[in-house]
Amino acid sequence: MIKLYHCMSARSFRALWALEELGLDYELVMLPFPPRMFQKEFLAINPLGTIPAMFDGDTFMTESSAIAQYLAERYGQGKLNIPVDDPRYGSYLNWLHFGEATLTFPQTLVLRYTRLEPEERRVPQVAEDYRKWFLGRLRGLEASLAKTSPWVLGDTFTAADISVAYALMLAENLGMNGEFGPETQAYWARVQQRDSFQRALKSQKESAKAQGVA
Amino acid sequence: MIKLYHCMSARSFRALWALEELGLDYELVMLPFPPRMFQKEFLAINPLGTIPAMFDGDTFMTESSAIAQYLAERYGQGKLNIPVDDPRYGSYLNWLHFGEATLTFPQTLVLRYTRLEPEERRVPQVAEDYRKWFLGRLRGLEASLAKTSPWVLGDTFTAADISVAYALMLAENLGMNGEFGPETQAYWARVQQRDSFQRALKSQKESAKAQGVA
Repeated sequence: MIKLYHCMSARSFRALWALEELGLDYELVMLPFPPRMFQKEFLAINPLGTIPAMFDGDTFMTESSAIAQYLAERYGQGKLNIPVDDPRYGSYLNWLHFGEATLTFPQTLVLRYTRLEPEERRVPQVAEDYRKWFLGRLRGLEASLAKTSPWVLGDTFTAADISVAYALMLAENLGMNGEFGPETQAYWARVQQRDSFQRALKSQKESAKAQGVA
Repeated sequence: MIKLYHCMSARSFRALWALEELGLDYELVMLPFPPRMFQKEFLAINPLGTIPAMFDGDTFMTESSAIAQYLAERYGQGKLNIPVDDPRYGSYLNWLHFGEATLTFPQTLVLRYTRLEPEERRVPQVAEDYRKWFLGRLRGLEASLAKTSPWVLGDTFTAADISVAYALMLAENLGMNGEFGPETQAYWARVQQRDSFQRALKSQKESAKAQGVA
């Protein structure tokens, strides 16, 4: 069975959500955030100390958007995936990477230098630089959704939506959703209405409670 | 014909290198870095202002590791690619994403806050935080190469190597290669001996000269 190490609403939510979209069986292990500080035994499982950490037989993965694509390709039977010969294939791969490398990483700077670091190490200039950076890149999503909806590739909900929409979830948690454009707002509302998204939220909450993880 | 917008030795080098590995025809347009400051007309081509920007018929892409995967899948005829049913497939996708999201993005913080920003906006603390962050993550590559070589997935050179090795190229340009572990050093030396890598270096140099871009 697939085993996923996860922290509440962290990047690994992408993997959890993909598992729920595909209706796969999985074991969810909840960890406090960041695990390399609060659960040092985790370093024996993933020496990087990062989440997600996913095991599927001999396959071990740590990149959340890659896991979403992997699960779609391996187990989706056409679901969540765009085939190589489809005209949307390049765009699919692009959004998969864009969601993490371009829309999520800059937000981790905002998180780190406004909340995670102790007071004396906080750097408002850098948090602001990357808040602007994120919002600038988000205009690319806004422009695209004006042409292609309800999902980033049009009619088909894919792993690329899981990659991109998680960045919006993080932005909401950081209080930046008030700056989403109207198309992005509407997209984010549609995403949250998906049963699989709600099941993933419920799954992490119930697992955290059962495992005594705050 | 595939058209690639590129800045000297920037992330878009991944796309250029993949084109050379696959022996594809392409048109290379060189831009000064960063193009959104020094060549504002580029915003009409890519409103994000980022490179790479790649056009292949109706396909438009901006994420360098995604482009490497796209070219491999679409045109590789088995080259540079790992098929979905191969046991290494999950690892392949993971390294593709790891090379950019985990190994390249942190270095852009070092670049920005030690070189690109004007003196008064430089932030040595943040540059140092992300230098350490990068070197910490790089230990994951070192440990993996001790088990799997000559390439990140073993015998087969893939788009995942293009993704990961570009991060080493950037690290060398930022003067961090002295801190590579021995496996990483040896891997980086092997990479640079590839004909396609040398052809990509030559291609960007000749195009820059021909187009009068510094």
